[in-house]
Amino acid sequence: MTSNKLPKPAEDFSEWYNQVIQRAELADYAPVRGCMVVRPYGWAIWENIQSALDGRFKATGHVNAAFPLFIPMSFLEKEKEHVEGFSPELAVVTIGGGQQLEEPLVVRPTSETIIGHMYAKWIQSYRDLPVLINQWANVVRWEMRTRLFLRTLEFYWQEGHTAHETAEEAEAETRRMLDVYEDFAVNEAAVPVIKGLKSDSEKFAGAVRSYTIEAMMGDTRALQSGTSHNLGQNFAKAFEIQYLDRNNELQYCWTTSWGLSTRFVGAIIMTHGDEQGLVLPPRLAPIQIVTVPIFRSEEEKSRVMEMTGKVQDMLSGFRIKVDDRLELTPGFKFNDWELRGVPLRLEIGPKDVENNAVTAARRDIAGREGKTSISMENLGQQISDLLDSVQKNIYDKAVAFREAHTHSPKDYAELQEAILSGWALSLWCGSADCETRIKEDTKATIRCIPLEQDGAGGACVYCGKKAEKKAIFSRAY
Amino acid sequence: MTSNKLPKPAEDFSEWYNQVIQRAELADYAPVRGCMVVRPYGWAIWENIQSALDGRFKATGHVNAAFPLFIPMSFLEKEKEHVEGFSPELAVVTIGGGQQLEEPLVVRPTSETIIGHMYAKWIQSYRDLPVLINQWANVVRWEMRTRLFLRTLEFYWQEGHTAHETAEEAEAETRRMLDVYEDFAVNEAAVPVIKGLKSDSEKFAGAVRSYTIEAMMGDTRALQSGTSHNLGQNFAKAFEIQYLDRNNELQYCWTTSWGLSTRFVGAIIMTHGDEQGLVLPPRLAPIQIVTVPIFRSEEEKSRVMEMTGKVQDMLSGFRIKVDDRLELTPGFKFNDWELRGVPLRLEIGPKDVENNAVTAARRDIAGREGKTSISMENLGQQISDLLDSVQKNIYDKAVAFREAHTHSPKDYAELQEAILSGWALSLWCGSADCETRIKEDTKATIRCIPLEQDGAGGACVYCGKKAEKKAIFSRAY
Repeated sequence: MTSNKLPKPAEDFSEWYNQVIQRAELADYAPVRGCMVVRPYGWAIWENIQSALDGRFKATGHVNAAFPLFIPMSFLEKEKEHVEGFSPELAVVTIGGGQQLEEPLVVRPTSETIIGHMYAKWIQSYRDLPVLINQWANVVRWEMRTRLFLRTLEFYWQEGHTAHETAEEAEAETRRMLDVYEDFAVNEAAVPVIKGLKSDSEKFAGAVRSYTIEAMMGDTRALQSGTSHNLGQNFAKAFEIQYLDRNNELQYCWTTSWGLSTRFVGAIIMTHGDEQGLVLPPRLAPIQIVTVPIFRSEEEKSRVMEMTGKVQDMLSGFRIKVDDRLELTPGFKFNDWELRGVPLRLEIGPKDVENNAVTAARRDIAGREGKTSISMENLGQQISDLLDSVQKNIYDKAVAFREAHTHSPKDYAELQEAILSGWALSLWCGSADCETRIKEDTKATIRCIPLEQDGAGGACVYCGKKAEKKAIFSRAY
Repeated sequence: MTSNKLPKPAEDFSEWYNQVIQRAELADYAPVRGCMVVRPYGWAIWENIQSALDGRFKATGHVNAAFPLFIPMSFLEKEKEHVEGFSPELAVVTIGGGQQLEEPLVVRPTSETIIGHMYAKWIQSYRDLPVLINQWANVVRWEMRTRLFLRTLEFYWQEGHTAHETAEEAEAETRRMLDVYEDFAVNEAAVPVIKGLKSDSEKFAGAVRSYTIEAMMGDTRALQSGTSHNLGQNFAKAFEIQYLDRNNELQYCWTTSWGLSTRFVGAIIMTHGDEQGLVLPPRLAPIQIVTVPIFRSEEEKSRVMEMTGKVQDMLSGFRIKVDDRLELTPGFKFNDWELRGVPLRLEIGPKDVENNAVTAARRDIAGREGKTSISMENLGQQISDLLDSVQKNIYDKAVAFREAHTHSPKDYAELQEAILSGWALSLWCGSADCETRIKEDTKATIRCIPLEQDGAGGACVYCGKKAEKKAIFSRAY
C-alpha cells in the first residue's frame, strides 16, 4: 500500500476505482493485455458470491456440471445472430501439440452452442425435461477496452442453461432466475437493482428476449449486473435439441440461459465505496470484523490481548480477524481496514478492558457517530445486530442515491440534461431509430424497460409518437 | 441407461471403466477430440472433493486466488526443463479479436510461470513471506491418448503455489501438502495411497524433488493421484522472485507447487467399483442414501409413502434422495442405484411399516448379508454408523487388495513376473539406466520410492549393485 491519498471518487471516479482495487489488493493486471489476476481478497468476495448464488440455484432445482473450454468454430456458425454477435470477440486456438489444427477451436465466449450439442444427445423424451444445469466457468471475450472486473478478456461467471417442454415453462424459468439475481443483489450485496427487459439492440445474440438487472454506480452510470435470456427455439433448432412429447410427437425444446459474472465485484465496489476506499456488505465481506488491540506498555498489552482472545472466541461464528501486527500504529491499521472495506472494527484498549466492553466502529458511518461501546455481555447478539444494521444502511443509502439521480424528463431537452447527472426514465415508442439517435446524441443507451411500470402511456420522449412504456436511458459501463 | 449388462471388470477392465462412466452419467465425450463433459453426477463428486480439500488448505493457512488462462509463450521458455517438458503438449492461441497475435498465447498447462511472474511483483521483503496461494482451475495439455477423467485435453484441478524464505520451509510445505493429500485420500475417498518420492525421470519439469501419492487400481495398475513439488530456486531465478531478508540482503525465494485433479474421480471409480458398477465412499457420494418405497396397492402406497416422508425428515442431515418414479419396478431401481454406487439403499415396504422399521441394503456387501432391518427408533444414529462402516469396509478392502497384489521380487526374473499381476517393491540402485531398461522390458515405471522404508539395503534388482532403498515398479495410468 502506498501512503499517498486515494483520489476522491467525486473528482476522478475512474482513477479512484482503479486505485481502490490495487490498494485493497482485490486484483492486479496480468502480463497479457486485458487479463486480470484476482488476488486472494478479491477472490474471497467472489467465493462468497458463488456460495450465495449456488445455494439459490440448488434450492430452485438446478445442478452443476462442466462443459469444455474449447468449441469447434463450426458450432458458433449454426446460430446466425449468435455468430454475428460473438465473432469479433473470439480467441482462437489454431495449434495443438505442435500441429496446425484442421478445425480451429474457439475459446468459449459463452456456452450455448456446445451445451446445445450435448443436450441434443441427452434429451430424448419429455421425461428428460426440464434439464436445469449451471456451470461455474471462465470465459474469454477479446475486448479492446478493458477495466479490472468490469470488462476483461477472461472473466469468471456462472452460466445456467436449461431446456423445457413449453414456451411458457422457458419464460417462467427466465423470469425465475432474474428474480434469483435480484434477491441475491438486494439481500446479499445490498445493491439495489431494477429488473427489466432489454431492447432488441441490446439483447443477447441469439435470444428471443433478454432480461437484466441494472444497478446505478456511484458516478450515476448504469451497470448491467446479471442477465437472463429466453432463447425460444433458436438454439434448439440450430442444434436439433428435440424430444418426443406426451403424444409421441417430435418437438423442439425451449431453452434459456442466464449469467452473472465477476463484474458484480465491480458493482459492489462502485455502489458502496467512498473516499476512504471499499465498503463491503457484511454478508459478502471476506472479513466481517477486524479487531485492533491497543496498548502502550507490556502490562497493558497482556490485559488487552487476553480480552482480545476472549472476543475472538465469543465471535468465532463470524468472519473475524485480529490485526496484531506490532510494527504498525493503530491509526495506520484503522485506515488500512477502512480502505479494505471491513464492515466493523473493534478497538480494544485498556479503557475497554476496564469497562468490560469493546469499542465498535462501523465502516458505513464515519467518525464519532459510527462508534459505540459494546458490553461483553451478549456481545454476539449485539455484533450480529450491528452487522445487520450496516447491511441495511448501505442498501438504503444506495436506494436513496439512485432515487435522487433518477429523473423523469418529459421532453428530449430534459432527457439530454438528465443524462448528465443520472438516469432518465422516459416514455419510449419502441423504435430502434429513436433509440439509436438518442445514443448518438447523448451516449446513453436503453438500460432496460422496467418490468414495473406506472401504466401511464403518452408521447415518446424522442419522436412524440404514441408510447406505452417507460425505459431507463443512461450511460453505462 | 441401456439394458444390456455391464462388462465384468475382471474380463475387460478398460471397457468396464468406460461403460460405468457413461451409464452412471458421470461424464461424456465432448465434440472436441480428447475433451470431456463432466455431467452433474460426476461434477457433484468433484464438488465434494473440492470441499474436502479446500477446507484442509484453508486450515493449513492457504488462500485461493485466480490467475489467467493465457500465458505468453516467452514465459514458458524462461525455465529450461519446464519448457522442454511441456512444449509438446501445448494448445496455442494465435488469433484474438480477428487479428493474428504478435506473441502467441499458451493455454496454461500449469501455472508456475505466470504465478512466478506475479509473485516477483508482489514479494518485496521477508515480511511478505510465506505466500500460500491455491487456485481451482482448468488446464489444458494436448495429450494424444485420452481417457475420461484419467487423461483429457482439458481437466480440472487445484494447483497450490507457495513461496518461502528458506529451503527448509519449502521442503516442509511440500511434505505438509503431501500429507494433506494422503489424509484426504484415506479419510474422505477411502483410497489407500503410498507416499513417496518420484525418480528424476518421473519428476515434474522444473522441480528439484517431486513427491506423489500412488494408489493401486482394481486391475492392479498404479495411478498417480496427487503430487507435491519442491521447486527449489529454479522458478525464483527464472522469474526473479526475490526478497530482502532479515539482514536487508536480496535473496531468491524457495517455491513449491502441488496439485490434485479430476483424475482422482477415476481413482475412486477404479479403486472401489465392482461388477454392479460404481461404489462411492459415503463421505464423497453425492447421494449417500436412496429410499425406495415399495407397494402394490393404493392402500399400501399411502402407508408406505407416509413412512417414507418420515424417514426423509429424520435423515435430512444426510444427502438423501427418494426414488418415487412410478413407471419403474423396485428391482430396476435397485440395479440403477447400485450402478451409480449409492452407499446405502433403504427399502420401505408394507412389512417394514408394520415393523416400524426400514430395510437397509449396503452397496459394499451384496445380497442377504448386506441387508439389515433398522428400527425407526434412533434411525439417524444407526444410519450414521452404517455409513461409517461402509466407508471403513471399502477402505479395508482396498488395502487388502493392494497388499495381496504387492510383491517383493528378489531378482529380475521375479520382478518381471510380479509386474504382470501387481506392484513390485524392490531394491533399486538409483540409476536411470536400470530404470529405463526395466521400463523397456516390462512397461513398468518407478511409481515412487516410498517414504516409509524397512531400511534393509542390498542388491539392486536389476544390476545387482548396492541399493539402499526400495522402489515400487508398476504399470500405470
